[in-house]
Amino acid sequence: MSAPSSPPNPTLFFETINAYQRTAALKAAVDLGLFSAFSGAPASADELAARCQCPVRGIRILCDSLTLFGFLTKEDSKYTPTSDTAFFLDKNSPAYLGNAVKFLTAPGIKDVFEGLTSTIKNGKVHDSEKGTTAPDHPVWMDFARTMGPMMFGPAQGAAALVELDTTRDTKVLDISASHGTFGITLAQKSPRAHLVALDWEAVLTVTEENAKAAGLGDRFSKIIGDAFTVDLGSDYDVVLVPNFLHHFNIADCTRFLKKVKAALRPGGKVVIVEFVPNDDRISPPSSATFSLVMLGTTPEGDAYTFAEYQKMLGDAGFKDAALHPLAPTAQSAVIGVA
Amino acid sequence: MSAPSSPPNPTLFFETINAYQRTAALKAAVDLGLFSAFSGAPASADELAARCQCPVRGIRILCDSLTLFGFLTKEDSKYTPTSDTAFFLDKNSPAYLGNAVKFLTAPGIKDVFEGLTSTIKNGKVHDSEKGTTAPDHPVWMDFARTMGPMMFGPAQGAAALVELDTTRDTKVLDISASHGTFGITLAQKSPRAHLVALDWEAVLTVTEENAKAAGLGDRFSKIIGDAFTVDLGSDYDVVLVPNFLHHFNIADCTRFLKKVKAALRPGGKVVIVEFVPNDDRISPPSSATFSLVMLGTTPEGDAYTFAEYQKMLGDAGFKDAALHPLAPTAQSAVIGVA
Repeated sequence: MSAPSSPPNPTLFFETINAYQRTAALKAAVDLGLFSAFSGAPASADELAARCQCPVRGIRILCDSLTLFGFLTKEDSKYTPTSDTAFFLDKNSPAYLGNAVKFLTAPGIKDVFEGLTSTIKNGKVHDSEKGTTAPDHPVWMDFARTMGPMMFGPAQGAAALVELDTTRDTKVLDISASHGTFGITLAQKSPRAHLVALDWEAVLTVTEENAKAAGLGDRFSKIIGDAFTVDLGSDYDVVLVPNFLHHFNIADCTRFLKKVKAALRPGGKVVIVEFVPNDDRISPPSSATFSLVMLGTTPEGDAYTFAEYQKMLGDAGFKDAALHPLAPTAQSAVIGVA
Repeated sequence: MSAPSSPPNPTLFFETINAYQRTAALKAAVDLGLFSAFSGAPASADELAARCQCPVRGIRILCDSLTLFGFLTKEDSKYTPTSDTAFFLDKNSPAYLGNAVKFLTAPGIKDVFEGLTSTIKNGKVHDSEKGTTAPDHPVWMDFARTMGPMMFGPAQGAAALVELDTTRDTKVLDISASHGTFGITLAQKSPRAHLVALDWEAVLTVTEENAKAAGLGDRFSKIIGDAFTVDLGSDYDVVLVPNFLHHFNIADCTRFLKKVKAALRPGGKVVIVEFVPNDDRISPPSSATFSLVMLGTTPEGDAYTFAEYQKMLGDAGFKDAALHPLAPTAQSAVIGVA
């Protein structure tokens, strides 16, 4: 047992049982454009209420709460966004993350946590057999539309880890391509790279828009359907598997990686991008907490350790599995050679 | 502006937007009796899953998450509750707080935060004009049934601050008596004290049960109804106003305190028990965060500062307003003399 605190302190209990209020306060601030209402200067609750066109009581309590939660500072009744808040949550910042709130609190993601007790007890997500892994689950449209900017960091890190031969035609397959950020970033490394994006049909309209906007032109094509059952094609130089395997159990991941291996040229690479916790599964926090998201939203998913990916890759016939943290992001790349 | 972090770090954004998952994990652990399944010794996920009769995947991810959130420690794949967890969240502990989870996540409390944006925008709780201040709101039955044990600390602290003359009959009025903990604790200081409990009719059945169990016998009576409009009676030595005023605006609080003043004997005392933040409204955190609960659940409530209570009491005709923090609890007593 750890040393007793003296006197016993229920603060963590209250903070945690009320933690949902932090989500609500942050979402409200983003919805109301609060963090975009400062114009680089401290502002009072009265000023912010006028700019957000809200009664002052709610804005004042919201600002005090966001100060307590670390998003604002307060001095002489005036609030100022922290530098991280201004960088990520002011709509005028190119790094704006506010649009991701829609996916992160979407039906199928947030509401299913209301049933977490029965999910744990029954071993499945309460309102469906498959959770977000169901075919054409609508949440992946929100994901594709809003999460691309958050993936620039991991996508650039992953692209930096693999070479594409610029002296010949090459082929890249992006599994669960979504916004396309991973595949597009990699394909841009060679003017002779062709990107094949795989996802649900509706989602691929977003991928295609983004590929066109990135100038890939006719160097882009699509595979519509379930990655486990659809024909992946062959002779790929690289298969990207970003934030996909965490939705499934180890046996299914291994089976899928065998299919990927068969689609790669000899010497081709699979690039898995994931939250990869250490073997203790409780560090680092930003990766380890992801397993709870998978518990809440998928029937069998998890945040797998590198040892587990190493085993899956070995069992699927890959060699030289290697782990590459994509610092400063919370994600890592696991690369195997076909 | 605060000094920029380098590089910009979105961790606080992700932690906060996902904070609702902490609530869900803690609630699931309480629902499943996880913290009561240790019997004082470290246990593995397999052992805990067997004891809680759940598949192991969910229990393992839940335990890792609760380790990250500070409720458990983990060593060599075995989990141990912290001393605070064992004290407050093991059903076998007399200080068990798990029953409070029902009130703290009840409809009318937690679900209304889904509409926080519109609450702020419209200046009222989204699905009703009155939020939890509506007559006979069912959440107060949950409160009365589950929150009494959490109030022992503040109730003992408040009772210690006022004397009851044991040489004559005295009268104590407990406003929004609920579980009755405040009134019963004070009335037990004198065998000649009579306790009058005011609340909604259904709630008073709980108060009465608890008063009988505490041995007050015929030293207990009830006033049913809306504290703002019902006749309070007169000649009270003490009127307790615990966790009531925070639901209302300052004008209504002042009006109510005038009514309390009229019901007290000259020299009698009003004892307000509340979360009272400092004038900056952002400290201490355990009091200051309460204003967000009032924003989410009431049309006009707040966590008022001592300066505000002092003004209300003065305007209502009280003298000698004084603040008494009820350490180690997060609450304070504000006492005024009639």
